[in-house]
Order: sequence, then C-alpha cells, then structure tokens
Amino acid sequence: MNKRKIISIIGRIILIEAALMIPALVVSLLYGDGDAPAFIVTMIPAMIVGLLFSRVRQSDRRMSSRDGYFIVAAAWIVISLIGAVPLFAAGGFASYWDALFEIISGFTTTGASILARPEDLGHGIIFWRSFTHWIGGMGVLVFVLMVMPMENDNSMHLVRAEVPGPTAGKLVPRMRTTSMILYGIYAAMTLILVVLLLCGRMSLFDSFCIAFGTAGTGGFATSSAGIAGYDSAYIEIVLGVFMLLFGINFNIYHLLLFGKIRDVFKSEEVKVYLGIVAASTIAISVNILGQSASLGRAVRDSFFQVASIITTTGFATVDFNFWPEFSKHTLVLLMIIGACAGSTGGGFKVSRGLILVKSFFAEIRKIITPRAVITVRLDKKPVDMQTVNSTKIYAGAYLILICVFTWILSLDGKDLTTNLTAVLSCFNNIGPGLAGVGPMENFSFYSDWAKVLLSAAMLTGRLEIFPMFLLFSRSTHKK
Amino acid sequence: MNKRKIISIIGRIILIEAALMIPALVVSLLYGDGDAPAFIVTMIPAMIVGLLFSRVRQSDRRMSSRDGYFIVAAAWIVISLIGAVPLFAAGGFASYWDALFEIISGFTTTGASILARPEDLGHGIIFWRSFTHWIGGMGVLVFVLMVMPMENDNSMHLVRAEVPGPTAGKLVPRMRTTSMILYGIYAAMTLILVVLLLCGRMSLFDSFCIAFGTAGTGGFATSSAGIAGYDSAYIEIVLGVFMLLFGINFNIYHLLLFGKIRDVFKSEEVKVYLGIVAASTIAISVNILGQSASLGRAVRDSFFQVASIITTTGFATVDFNFWPEFSKHTLVLLMIIGACAGSTGGGFKVSRGLILVKSFFAEIRKIITPRAVITVRLDKKPVDMQTVNSTKIYAGAYLILICVFTWILSLDGKDLTTNLTAVLSCFNNIGPGLAGVGPMENFSFYSDWAKVLLSAAMLTGRLEIFPMFLLFSRSTHKK
Repeated sequence: MNKRKIISIIGRIILIEAALMIPALVVSLLYGDGDAPAFIVTMIPAMIVGLLFSRVRQSDRRMSSRDGYFIVAAAWIVISLIGAVPLFAAGGFASYWDALFEIISGFTTTGASILARPEDLGHGIIFWRSFTHWIGGMGVLVFVLMVMPMENDNSMHLVRAEVPGPTAGKLVPRMRTTSMILYGIYAAMTLILVVLLLCGRMSLFDSFCIAFGTAGTGGFATSSAGIAGYDSAYIEIVLGVFMLLFGINFNIYHLLLFGKIRDVFKSEEVKVYLGIVAASTIAISVNILGQSASLGRAVRDSFFQVASIITTTGFATVDFNFWPEFSKHTLVLLMIIGACAGSTGGGFKVSRGLILVKSFFAEIRKIITPRAVITVRLDKKPVDMQTVNSTKIYAGAYLILICVFTWILSLDGKDLTTNLTAVLSCFNNIGPGLAGVGPMENFSFYSDWAKVLLSAAMLTGRLEIFPMFLLFSRSTHKK
Repeated sequence: MNKRKIISIIGRIILIEAALMIPALVVSLLYGDGDAPAFIVTMIPAMIVGLLFSRVRQSDRRMSSRDGYFIVAAAWIVISLIGAVPLFAAGGFASYWDALFEIISGFTTTGASILARPEDLGHGIIFWRSFTHWIGGMGVLVFVLMVMPMENDNSMHLVRAEVPGPTAGKLVPRMRTTSMILYGIYAAMTLILVVLLLCGRMSLFDSFCIAFGTAGTGGFATSSAGIAGYDSAYIEIVLGVFMLLFGINFNIYHLLLFGKIRDVFKSEEVKVYLGIVAASTIAISVNILGQSASLGRAVRDSFFQVASIITTTGFATVDFNFWPEFSKHTLVLLMIIGACAGSTGGGFKVSRGLILVKSFFAEIRKIITPRAVITVRLDKKPVDMQTVNSTKIYAGAYLILICVFTWILSLDGKDLTTNLTAVLSCFNNIGPGLAGVGPMENFSFYSDWAKVLLSAAMLTGRLEIFPMFLLFSRSTHKK
C-alpha cells in the first residue's frame, strides 16, 4: 500500500470537509442560533490536521485498486467522525454516538434519525445535517476529484470503489471532466427543485434543506411533521417526481445532455425501474383504497411512499405502519430492490436484480441445452463475465450481511420485524422501516452499541460492502 | 425430450407408491380404525394407471439431463397428488387442498401441519403421513433406482436433480449400488433409533412414526402434544442426537462403513455444522436461563430446538415463541442455514454457505492482488468453477424466491414475521416458524390459495429450485 499517498488524500478530504461547513456556519450566524462556535471548534482543528496530512511528501504517485478501496472506506469514516462534532458540540444530542449515527445517516443518505423533534436544533445544525445528504449522494470522493487534479488511473480506482452499482465510471475517459459534468447536472437539478418548492410556498430555508434531502435521496426533514406538515398535494407531487428522477442512473442525464436520446430509451434498467414504480403504486392504491378518504388520496399517498422507498429517500407523508399487510410487504420488497445503479439512491439496485434474474434463467437454459454458449445481456449488449460474477457474489454477501446484522441486533431485544426492517433500512440507506422504526418513529430506543452497529450497516451498504471489508482485512495491511 | 421414457418412469413411480401404501394399510387393518377403504380406493386405480404408463414402449432409451430434472419435478407432484387421496378420503381434512398440503409437507420432510389434533386421525393415516417423511427424506427417485435397474447415465441425471446440495452423487460410479448402500445405512440407523425409543418406553407405533419423522428430518408427531408429551429427558436427548446424525452428509457414513475414518475428520462441512450447533446451543442456553427452571433444563431445551431447527426437522419441546428475541433470531438464522448437503435435511446447506463465504473472501483477495489466481477450496481441495457458479446463482435465486413467496403470501393479510418465517419454514422444509406459525400453532388459518403457494414453496425448496422451474419453463416443451 502507498501509505503516504493515502494520508495525503485523506488530508485533502478533511480540508474540503472543513470548507463544506462554511455554508452551515453562515446559516448559523444569519439566524443567530448560537451554534456558530460548534462549527468553529470543529473547523479549525480539522483545517490544521488536514493541512499537515495533505503536505505529506509522496515519493510514489501510483495507487493500486486496493488503495482506492482503502481510501474510500477510510475517508467515509473520517468525514463522519469529524462531521458529527458540530452536532454533538451544539448540544442537541445525548451522546457523541447519537451524533455520529445521525451524521453517518446523513452522509450515507439514509435519513434515519435519533431525534424526535429536529426543530429543537438550531438552523445551522439542521442545514449541515441536510447538506451531508447532498454531499454524500453524489459521493465524497467524486467531489474531491472535481476540486483537485489527480492522475486519471488513480481517480478511476476511487470512483469505482465509491459509485454504486455494477457498471460505474464508464462515462468518459477523463474522470475529472466526468465528475464536473455529473456534479453540474446534480446541482442544476437541485436548484430547479428549490425553485419549484419555493413556488409551493415552502420557506427558503426548508426549500434548500428538503431539496438536499431529495437530491441525495436522503430523507432528513426539518421538523417532526416531515413532508406531511406542508399539507400540499403540489409539494408531494413535485418531491415524488424528483425523488424518482434522482433515483435514475445519472448516465441517462449525461446522454440527454449530449443529445443521445435514442440511447436513453434503450435502458432496460430505467424501464424496469419505472415499471416497478407504476405497478407498486397501482397495487398499493387498490390495497389502501378502503382506508383512504378518496381514490385520489389513495393514489397520492401510494405514489409518494413508493417513490420515497424505492429511491431509498425515506420521506413519508403517512404512517404506513397502519397500512394493510400487503402494502407493507410491498414496501419491504421495494426497500430491498432500491434505485438504479449510478444514481444517488441505495439498495440492491435494479440492474443487479436484472443481472441476477437473467443469470438464473441462463442457468436453466444451460441445463436444457448444455452445449450452448449462453451470455447474460443488458440493454441488448452482453454483460462481461466479471460483472456477472461480482453481482452474484454481491447478492450472496448481501444475504449473509442482512442476516448477520439482524441477528446481532436482536441482542438488543427488539422484535424481528423491527430489527429486520431497521437493518434493511440502514443497509440500503432508506431511513424508516416498519413497527418500532416506522416512519413516525425514530431510532433513539436502540442501545448505543446497536446504533454503532446500524451506523456500520449504513456505511457498509453505502459503499457496497467491499471497501469496508478491505479496510479491516488482515491481508490489506500485509506488505 | 424423451416423452415415452418419462411416462414409463412416472408409471413405475406410481406403482411403487401404491406398494409403499401397503404398510399403512396393514396398520389400518390391525388397529381396525376403519380407514382401510381410503387406502384401497387409492391403491387400485394407482396400480392400473401405473401399469399402463410403465408399459409405454420406448423406442429410445437415452435420457438427457433436462429429462432428469423434468422427471424429478413431475414425479414429486404426481406422488403428492396421489398420496393426498387417502388422507382426504379418510375424512380428517376439510378439503383436498388441506390433505395435499399435509402430504407435500410429508414428502418434502417439512412437517408443517394443518391439523390441530393429529390424534383424531386413524392409526393408518398417521402412519402413512409419517412414512412419507421417511420416503421423501432419502429421495423418491433414489428409492426407484434401488428397486429397478436403469442405465447408469440416466440414473445420474435423476440423482443429480433430486439429492440436495452442491456435490451430489459422486460416491461410487454405479448408481444402483450407491442407492442400496445409502438406503441400507438409512434403514439401519432408523431401526437403531426405533429400538432406542422403545427403551425409552415409547409405544411401538409411536416409535416407528417418530423415527420416520426424525430420519427424514420431517417433524410430524403423532399427537398435538408432540415430543413434549413424552416428558422424558432420555427421549429428547436420543432424538436430538439422531436429528443431528441424519443432518450429516451421508457420504460420511459411507466413508465410515468403508473404514476411511481419516477422511471423515477432514470434512469442513461437518466441522462447521457441529460448531454452529455447539455455539447456538450455548448462546441460547445463556439467553433463556432466566426463564428456565434450571441450567440443565435450559441446556436441554436449547439443544433440542437447535438440533431440530438446523436439521430442518421441526420437532419442538417448548414454545420458542416465548423465548427472548435473540434466541428467536438465532433460530431463524439456523432455519436459513439448514443441514449438510447430501443429508435428509433441507435449508440452504452448510457447504453452500461455506462456498459463498469463501467466494466472497476470494473476491476481496482478488481486489488486493488482481493478478493472483484464486480458487475456492473445500476440504483442502479446489471446488470446480461450475459448482461455485451454481452455488452463487442458487443464493441469488434463494433470496429472490423467499422475497417473492413472502410478498405474495402477504395478500392473505398476516404479519411479516408470520409470513416470512412460514415461507422460510416451508421452503427450507422445517415445519414451524414464529408468531402465527410458531411450534404450538398450525397452518390451518391460511386461505386455500396460500396453502397451495406454501406447498409450491415446499416442493421448490426440497428439489432446490431448478427442477420446478424447468418443469414450467416454456423452452423445456419446445422441440
């Protein structure tokens, strides 16, 4: 491992995080909520450490694929540890572990909260909490690549380890340009959403925070009433549509930007994704019709929760804990599936599901005609064996990790539905689950160790398993 | 497909099933329970149809691997449809679907029951119900191969499709001899168990029925009190040990029989399997100590339920629905893992789990040293790529099917814990689950369509997914 290189990059990441706190500090000062010192005591030491680390001299500028995974995992832990400090220092959290859970939930765009009443926090802290969704959604390392130059090979290693889904980073050969284009699209879409929310008479502050939560598919709201508090069909429809847009593979927007509209309609993943949304919305609408005020209301509630859960955002406008079992089971299924690869959403990803189902039928065809060469195809192009193989291993690891996390969590004494959906929700970066962690509940009742475990699940899920295991693998640290 | 060959083999299977009903008919006549006609009205038409089918002239004796899968799937459905007739005709079941659920639960060695009070049935019917566990445990087709000669290549196709686990049928080149040896070991172990149960003052009738349920890792008892009704530590320990023995890969006994004791201790699967049993027994003992009469009682209860669940037998001596959450979660984990490959037990299988975990770490090593050739090893020998690949596809299909079955089942309105554990229990051929399908409950409250769905889950799980999909795959029926 190239340790000097790693330390220097981590140093730069710390510097950038300190800089990213400036908007929250400004908000804090503008509203005079008294939390400005909490930011300052974090930023000054961070800048000093960051400067020292980033100055480490590198004898060798090369980086291996392993270094890439290592940096990504370490970076996410470091930014979380630092990002939690203002939350704890401002005094709204019972312990540093609570603040850490909250900020990891922010960066990983989970949106699961410890807080019963976020409105008791100062504006600066709420802004920072929501802003971490926006940073984490597109990726911390992708951001780093944008603001500072790096060798192209090296940056590929980083992007591959951070961007979700089986086919990351194949857009354009130059990573820095790609990062800039992606963040450009991301920022533009976020700004459009802010304007649309302002048109719905949402306050400027809330518009920004809610837009961050939507763009990153995070799900933190600004008050305990959540999105239901605005009581506006317009806002719900705008957010529903934008959640779905941010859950689509960003390659699609890249293609649109460069006029390759025909390629957009070829994407099987997007078609299946929208098909699942439509089918689930209809199924749940019918299922909840009996307990809804009207058909319109049923469709509105169904559409919003479906969009929120499949994109792993986690906003809620109704307490779906009270929905019929079929609707609840459907939401759990959507939790597992998740959004498109290469989007800001989490979960298993639609394209992985497609590759898995297609591999299964390929295996059946192989039994029927043993001598035929059978390839798995996506968007009419064959998927390379390495991707198919990784997808299958991912599915196995996913199954094992969900089981193990849920099992360990049971030591805290909660029931199976609560624990399983808490793990699914955290691992897939959604936010709410069912029963004890339903949309109108919060995660505060879990013990400190359980919160740390769920934080680990969020990070492992956000980085798609491998980086976290590499970080703690013995062979990583061998010469 | 060689349709004539398929029909002729199905015919022979029907004949054999009619013959296998003779012991139950004799029991019925001995006890004079009045159910003899129910057997006779099943056996006579079955013999006629079986004779006609088996006489179909075969122009071509060859069989493809696809034919093998097809026959196994079709055979299991046919024997279930016929096997349910005496149950329904004897009048103890509300509908034919209930009887079908019960007998599929029997053949697949699930042991999930519709009945609140099995003791209300006649002795002949109870005997038949338990005997199906014994037949299904080692495999219907394996039995067929033993009693009638078949070309060696053809029989390989059948065994591969029926025997569970990733490495079936590699024992000895001649399948017929293998089948005989396996059934010999199986019958001998069952007889030893009968004798041991008789020593525990169990009645002769119960000793046979309970021994069938143990040997096939099925789990049907003869009365609603179940194993707890005997109130004997001796019987619980004997059954606990024998459940574990029947959950071990039968290759081990084959090796023992031929004196290759050193090879036995090399088996990683057996070591991990016994390790999981020991660890789970200790963990649950500690966890339930507070609600147990004594440490001895806690260990006894823990050991019996652990052995019963990991081997997918499904006997219960306590209502573990009232255990602490951690113990319940541990049982759910054991449900998923299951027994050893090549045993009579169901589940995902310990060896598949091992291959999956090792593939995952192989993938991590590949990231660390991209140029190294990394193979997955089991028992110090490399596992061939095809097996590793099938295991991964199996894991993916397992994950998807558990989700889909649970999701559809939710249309019946039960809660997530009940539905999920019902599906895990049926798919892995265990018997009880948690909540509504706990060990002191039964499956009667599910709608008819839900019972058919769960029956499909039992068959799909018993035959390890592929045969059932081949049976209903369109391309199977193409020329």
